[in-house]
Amino acid sequence: MLEKADLKVKCSKEEYENIEEGLLERIGCLQRRLREKGIPVIILFDGWHASLRGRVISSVLAGLDPRGFRVRSAAKKNACTEGLPYLTRFWTELPAQGSIAIYNNSWYYGLFEDKADSAKKSEGAELKVHAEDVNVFEKQLADGGYLLIKIFLHISQERQEKNLEKLEKTYGKDWHKIDGNHVKEKEYELRYEIYDETIEATDKRKAKWHVIPAEDLQVAQREAFGVICREIETALKDERTDENHRLQEDAKKVPDVLSGFDLSLNVSKDEYKEELKEYQKKLQKLQFQLAKKDIAAIIAFEGWDASGKGGAIRRLTSLLDPVGYRVVPIGKPTETELQHHYLWRFWQAMPFPGEITIFDRTWYGRVLVERVESLVKEQEWRRAYREINETEELWRREGIVLIKFWLQIDKEQQMARFRDRENTPSKTWKITEEDWRNRSRWEEYEKAVNEMLFRTSTDVAPWVVVEANDKYHARLKVLKTVADEFERALAKP
Amino acid sequence: MLEKADLKVKCSKEEYENIEEGLLERIGCLQRRLREKGIPVIILFDGWHASLRGRVISSVLAGLDPRGFRVRSAAKKNACTEGLPYLTRFWTELPAQGSIAIYNNSWYYGLFEDKADSAKKSEGAELKVHAEDVNVFEKQLADGGYLLIKIFLHISQERQEKNLEKLEKTYGKDWHKIDGNHVKEKEYELRYEIYDETIEATDKRKAKWHVIPAEDLQVAQREAFGVICREIETALKDERTDENHRLQEDAKKVPDVLSGFDLSLNVSKDEYKEELKEYQKKLQKLQFQLAKKDIAAIIAFEGWDASGKGGAIRRLTSLLDPVGYRVVPIGKPTETELQHHYLWRFWQAMPFPGEITIFDRTWYGRVLVERVESLVKEQEWRRAYREINETEELWRREGIVLIKFWLQIDKEQQMARFRDRENTPSKTWKITEEDWRNRSRWEEYEKAVNEMLFRTSTDVAPWVVVEANDKYHARLKVLKTVADEFERALAKP
Repeated sequence: MLEKADLKVKCSKEEYENIEEGLLERIGCLQRRLREKGIPVIILFDGWHASLRGRVISSVLAGLDPRGFRVRSAAKKNACTEGLPYLTRFWTELPAQGSIAIYNNSWYYGLFEDKADSAKKSEGAELKVHAEDVNVFEKQLADGGYLLIKIFLHISQERQEKNLEKLEKTYGKDWHKIDGNHVKEKEYELRYEIYDETIEATDKRKAKWHVIPAEDLQVAQREAFGVICREIETALKDERTDENHRLQEDAKKVPDVLSGFDLSLNVSKDEYKEELKEYQKKLQKLQFQLAKKDIAAIIAFEGWDASGKGGAIRRLTSLLDPVGYRVVPIGKPTETELQHHYLWRFWQAMPFPGEITIFDRTWYGRVLVERVESLVKEQEWRRAYREINETEELWRREGIVLIKFWLQIDKEQQMARFRDRENTPSKTWKITEEDWRNRSRWEEYEKAVNEMLFRTSTDVAPWVVVEANDKYHARLKVLKTVADEFERALAKP
Repeated sequence: MLEKADLKVKCSKEEYENIEEGLLERIGCLQRRLREKGIPVIILFDGWHASLRGRVISSVLAGLDPRGFRVRSAAKKNACTEGLPYLTRFWTELPAQGSIAIYNNSWYYGLFEDKADSAKKSEGAELKVHAEDVNVFEKQLADGGYLLIKIFLHISQERQEKNLEKLEKTYGKDWHKIDGNHVKEKEYELRYEIYDETIEATDKRKAKWHVIPAEDLQVAQREAFGVICREIETALKDERTDENHRLQEDAKKVPDVLSGFDLSLNVSKDEYKEELKEYQKKLQKLQFQLAKKDIAAIIAFEGWDASGKGGAIRRLTSLLDPVGYRVVPIGKPTETELQHHYLWRFWQAMPFPGEITIFDRTWYGRVLVERVESLVKEQEWRRAYREINETEELWRREGIVLIKFWLQIDKEQQMARFRDRENTPSKTWKITEEDWRNRSRWEEYEKAVNEMLFRTSTDVAPWVVVEANDKYHARLKVLKTVADEFERALAKP
């Protein structure tokens, strides 16, 4: 795609100054309309080293209200997400609805630059991210309502050399040290090929690349304004034609997964006490081993109201080092969370190497409560099955241990526990109107649970259904499963 | 204070198990009442290495709803605040109203452990934090409505050795590597002295230390529950007797600071254009030099509505590298921000070494809009003068460049600009009902501005009043002042 950019176009300083005022007003006005409509925007500026991205970005910023944008750079480390999967950083940095995120060097930095660096080495180092991961990420964003504008600033080898000389004259010999972007541009041809290939591989319908000639700074500024304004105008007009045509196919018969479990399984109090202590001690040691090996773990708990999630989590953690694990309870999203992608808040809680994050309710809320309560459209929760599988697969590939529990009880057992909560003064706070309302929709939830278990039990991230009518059995099964999975992870070379 | 703890008290496992259920219910109930009252709580667990803090914390956690607490450790690095002033981390980690933060090793880690380490070195290394800073911090928290519970677990040298042996038996020889807490406990006496002194120096009325004997694990657990429950119960009863008696004195006559400025100062368009370009280029280079020297800068803008803050910021930043600075606009606090200390959101935006944070409106909102609109009580905004001075002094001591601008216009000039905004279609969005309302309170604001300038122009963080009736003059003064301050900072050895 690079060869299509016409590097010979010119625009004089005077010409540009004549149109500048108009461009600034136009983009400022568009920004206010984006805010009204609550559309989040991400603008990527990638391109050749010394293609003056900073200058082009500055000219765009001059028209924007700073209350609505944030500039970032993937060439700079984000210490907060160091050690986490490559895309975590960009997930956590996603702009809220109506806001604009601008990258001077985006997630493509890990493709463009790392690929070039690795190509130079004889062995070819391992990449932190692949074009396919980026495509999945960008599709999730586009489907989630994000407007993505990808700009590549293209310059010739001669222009690059001239720009480099000029930068050196302005800042001194050591100027390039500042952004970690060392001058290593002798290999123009090698890079040309890599950039071109990568752009080709990641140019998608809702995530198109715009290659802008930056041979002449004013041309680049004018073109950048043009691309950004046109893309925003299109997004503002877009009535979002949703893809209903595939719903039919996806809605095919779901087998009854839940009924295959024996809810009468139980354990005596004595056996429970003994095994509980044994496994708690075992987990204490395993946590230490995981920490030493820098293995991160995510333990996800889902289940009916009053199925014993909290109690199981308490037993699971009672001997763990409290600094090494974290229980993240998932309730109604906050105002801020609602202004982001539904997966955003889970990416915020990723465990660091050697740490454990326990989710008390999870991202599966999308296909459970949000589905049953019609909080989202059918195509949104249907799409979530794929998105969740993609996300979990990514986590697993990064070496994160992932354990997903569904705590299964029957309707009678739930009633007994609700009554017990109502009748025990110290437990009444645990039972609310909402619990009763959810219960009245038991059959709808059952259908949703069945479909969830069916569609998201993948090879790399299978569900563990826990028969939970008997609390002792349930807790022991949880502890044993976690211990087994930890041991498996530790056994890997 | 350490010698007061009776290390001989015993409590058998059976005794403890008998009372455990009651303790868990009591603390769970208190947590729910804290949430209702919206009181934020911070519980610090410090003490000897191998004093089994983790075990004591776990026993407390067992009674708490995980929706309301978070455990952290200062012995573990928080990568997000690496390179920022020592207390930044704890500021940004503050719990929201109704939530509990628990530290296994708190900000005292930087006092207890670093002091001990440094005492061992012949020269005595420089400390990252001093007892006096901690006292200021804790007073700000207590005044801000935070309940602070500080627990020190005390053990004898014999017990420490026994515990260390036991830990080694459980986890293996390398166990101590896990939390960065290397075994260096040969110096029991040296540490005893340091701990004791530090506790003495930081034991304040609203930030009392509780030294708990941890010779016997069950005693420590029982005592920790006792201290925490009693402190919470007191806080729940507390009707907050505010200190009105000193208001009289503080309210003494404030000189008319504002009237001393010549608002007729102006610059011709030609001169402006020329100098603007010159200073923008100069700032471009200075930003690069600051980045190279890892110097951080905070530039704070305050001023009347329509005094030209936005325009000045735009001229200031137009040639800066957009990745190296960030404009943080301060408006009405969000829901989440309201649940924290009023200074919390500013600590979140601290510039990293080599970076610049520009605040468009600032923490001075406390003594301006919040005072004039009676959003806080008089003692709250009065206290803010001291708190702000303390905070700015801390930043300056950490080597951060701090520049504070007040953009001054007169009432007629504001009216002219409001009218212009109303009459220019592309500017109408800039003028709102609120601007007119603020204007109707001009005299009250003037009084507040005067007092602010008087009380918070300190030696290390003086205000720069910018005569802003003429925009050209104002912008040039801003750019020149920033350039001068940057040069001064760079000139320091």
